[in-house]
Amino acid sequence: MVERYVITTLLLSFISFSSIVFASSSSSCSSIAGLPLVRNISEIPQDSYGRPGLSHVTVAGSILHGMKEVEVWLQTFSPGTHTPIHRHSCEEVFIVQKGSGTLYIASYSHGKYPGKPEEHFIFPNSTFHIPVNDAHQLWNTNEHEDLQVLVIISRPPVKVFVYDDWSMPHSAARLKFPYYWDEQCSQESSKDEL
Amino acid sequence: MVERYVITTLLLSFISFSSIVFASSSSSCSSIAGLPLVRNISEIPQDSYGRPGLSHVTVAGSILHGMKEVEVWLQTFSPGTHTPIHRHSCEEVFIVQKGSGTLYIASYSHGKYPGKPEEHFIFPNSTFHIPVNDAHQLWNTNEHEDLQVLVIISRPPVKVFVYDDWSMPHSAARLKFPYYWDEQCSQESSKDEL
Repeated sequence: MVERYVITTLLLSFISFSSIVFASSSSSCSSIAGLPLVRNISEIPQDSYGRPGLSHVTVAGSILHGMKEVEVWLQTFSPGTHTPIHRHSCEEVFIVQKGSGTLYIASYSHGKYPGKPEEHFIFPNSTFHIPVNDAHQLWNTNEHEDLQVLVIISRPPVKVFVYDDWSMPHSAARLKFPYYWDEQCSQESSKDEL
Repeated sequence: MVERYVITTLLLSFISFSSIVFASSSSSCSSIAGLPLVRNISEIPQDSYGRPGLSHVTVAGSILHGMKEVEVWLQTFSPGTHTPIHRHSCEEVFIVQKGSGTLYIASYSHGKYPGKPEEHFIFPNSTFHIPVNDAHQLWNTNEHEDLQVLVIISRPPVKVFVYDDWSMPHSAARLKFPYYWDEQCSQESSKDEL
């Protein structure tokens, strides 16, 4: 009986120690199962990831939280800031929460490079989707207000091909993977595999 | 030469006629490619689909708009209203836009029926995800205010299993497919196939 008690106590201590280790590493990169089910978005860590004027929050992420099929971001662009010109092989839906701006988009099927993009005005409570592989760029063209968008992508984590300009050939676009907000956790998880 | 001209004219007329037919049918059930790229969410048709106190908007849908991998809804529940107890085999992320309420959720792995659910308070700017196949129910338990949520699901169109109560066996839950907001377009597309 004493032996069983000692073994049980040791086991419980180990489980408790594991939970502490897991909880402390879960602040940056963890399964969503290790986080509270309901979270306040304003308390989720945000970062510019080296891009001035950007605030990015991964609301529900693949590498960060273990989502398999969808990923949700909240992004805020200060006046005059923008995404790179880029494309990705996934579905993407935007919902404009605040502010306004311009979406530039060029159909992938048009030729060997994006070419002159269409311009679309985007405004509060508007929605748009980016067809798979269409090169696009989002600008906060409103000089007085932040542009805030909710972004939903399929097939996470996102694999982004970046263009220098609209006449750069599709074949020359550079793959940026992992993308900015997935970099830290990707490094941590590849260390784990060593 | 005259023959070629006549054939070309006939062909162009046919293409033009087809476009008109496509445009007129696109108001309810269409490829998203047939809609303006940027849309005002407040102008997208909403309906209660026979559920008093519900307002459902399919912001970007599979059956409605041709999305393949993600679907986005905006749903508003008047005070005291709720979803059925249900589960689905897809990822689902919620973002609370307005109001507050209660999420009831029971892990699928617990047994042969959902059992007593956990209760979670949900509030403005909160987010939560529903693990694949977990039975859940959303209530607007705030008697003074509407509850508005953005809902993102993977693997559209959604296939929903509905429970009468939390002690109904998983195996007895009824498949509701197509779901309320997909019904009309599913009927139209199955007619097309006749």
